[in-house]
Amino acid sequence: MDVTPTKGADQLRQYIERIERLEEEKKALMSDIKDIFSEAKASGFDPKTMRQIIRIRAMDEEVLAEQETLLDTYREALGLR
Amino acid sequence: MDVTPTKGADQLRQYIERIERLEEEKKALMSDIKDIFSEAKASGFDPKTMRQIIRIRAMDEEVLAEQETLLDTYREALGLR
Repeated sequence: MDVTPTKGADQLRQYIERIERLEEEKKALMSDIKDIFSEAKASGFDPKTMRQIIRIRAMDEEVLAEQETLLDTYREALGLR
Repeated sequence: MDVTPTKGADQLRQYIERIERLEEEKKALMSDIKDIFSEAKASGFDPKTMRQIIRIRAMDEEVLAEQETLLDTYREALGLR
């Protein structure tokens, strides 16, 4: 590792600053998500149940993706296209 | 809450989908952050120490912001501008 106060430090600073910028964006997104939950709650929807629905949908999608991968593997193994 | 299968369900679906889109963006950002840490590690920097630096910088910024708010309050209280 080049830790001279010039090149190494500059490189390190760049990595840190890139991460900090992305962390800022992440924070903004999380705040937006929180706002939508608040808005939904104000409209009478229960945020906790919404979170469960989002989890279920994500799981369903994962299962579907796994099935598709498996199907592709079998088709390739059998020379089907 | 309007839970007829028409308006209420549509509204709920819209909230859920908006959240899911933002969650996707968050996931992408987190993956980008992970990539930068990997890249930094490959360049010889220690990710754990980098995380500490990022925490310290965030705390410093928070302290600075608090000091500025306090200073503003005092200035206003004393009619300074």
